[in-house]
Amino acid sequence: MTEPAATSSPSPELEFWFDFASNYSYLSVMRIEDEALKNGVRIVWRPFLLGPIFRAMGMENSPFVTQKEKGVYVWRDMVRQCQKYGITWQQPSAFPRLGVLPSRVALLGADEPWIGTFCRNVMELNFAFDQEVNQPENIGPILSRIGLPADDLLRRAQSEPIKDRLRQRTDQARARGIFGAPTFFLGSEMYWGNDRLDDAIRLAANQR
Amino acid sequence: MTEPAATSSPSPELEFWFDFASNYSYLSVMRIEDEALKNGVRIVWRPFLLGPIFRAMGMENSPFVTQKEKGVYVWRDMVRQCQKYGITWQQPSAFPRLGVLPSRVALLGADEPWIGTFCRNVMELNFAFDQEVNQPENIGPILSRIGLPADDLLRRAQSEPIKDRLRQRTDQARARGIFGAPTFFLGSEMYWGNDRLDDAIRLAANQR
Repeated sequence: MTEPAATSSPSPELEFWFDFASNYSYLSVMRIEDEALKNGVRIVWRPFLLGPIFRAMGMENSPFVTQKEKGVYVWRDMVRQCQKYGITWQQPSAFPRLGVLPSRVALLGADEPWIGTFCRNVMELNFAFDQEVNQPENIGPILSRIGLPADDLLRRAQSEPIKDRLRQRTDQARARGIFGAPTFFLGSEMYWGNDRLDDAIRLAANQR
Repeated sequence: MTEPAATSSPSPELEFWFDFASNYSYLSVMRIEDEALKNGVRIVWRPFLLGPIFRAMGMENSPFVTQKEKGVYVWRDMVRQCQKYGITWQQPSAFPRLGVLPSRVALLGADEPWIGTFCRNVMELNFAFDQEVNQPENIGPILSRIGLPADDLLRRAQSEPIKDRLRQRTDQARARGIFGAPTFFLGSEMYWGNDRLDDAIRLAANQR
């Protein structure tokens, strides 16, 4: 008897916790599916809301809003980071933008093949086209464009069980020690920030 | 007439602002001289104190101390980052440690060939050997070991002109929008964090 060949073992999983309001989550949403594919890693999509987490930590808003110096820096950093990764960038005229509706849709689609495409489109709406992302009239066309029944999904996204699920997801984030986004989990190991995505993917791939 | 060959132009300069109390500065201090050498970049060493900057921003202490969740994360992140870079690591039993004395010595040595060796030794005292770094009896032996007149340097480091210079340097840091360490400047372009060292070095090298 021998162990099953490595190639037949299941893909290692990396949990990806992100918020549609978060500019550094934008970088990871745009990059993660390609990186995961190249490295044979399966992504578990975990949309959540950072706002309640910040408030539980005693912060009124994103540190990019409350700390003037950091705020100035972050928008310059985003220009350079997007240039480095070849990602389109336009500094949003409103920040942070509420992303409750797309988070609920993403919860519905978390295990569906369209999750990556949907999340990239929502993120681009916010950070490449400077549009609001919390309105059905902005999210519906994204769903239609990728061939999904927009009205049905938007209705289900606003149902009580899905609203509850997003609240629970955000509570889970707090319970697991998440304090920012994006955050990645490989088992119990937590990695914070787009700057840790490559480490997390590489370490996940090494688990095969 | 032709332009001078690229190889004869002066090396591009990268300013390196760091604090001996800062764990992410530790990573950059340990790495920067090798990276600069490989890429033909000259490092301008800029020791400063982060404490007055945090206080000016209304923060009592490092966010790694005041934000519990971030604090827990950072020490785990340091273990993994040091492993990645092959840097020795021991979580300091006191944090952040006052580094006024070595900062003053580093101001004296900023343009001397021993600056890198000195800074690495002080950082290792704090983050690899869990020792205080603000005492002459800890800093003197480092200077002696690298063949320098320890008593003379320690006396000059505690002179009024050098004390003033460190205060001015810290004021300059604030004036330039620095809000954390390490911070790098390539001309007026600011890069924050050890995670931006490689970008900053690469962009500096491209200026030749």
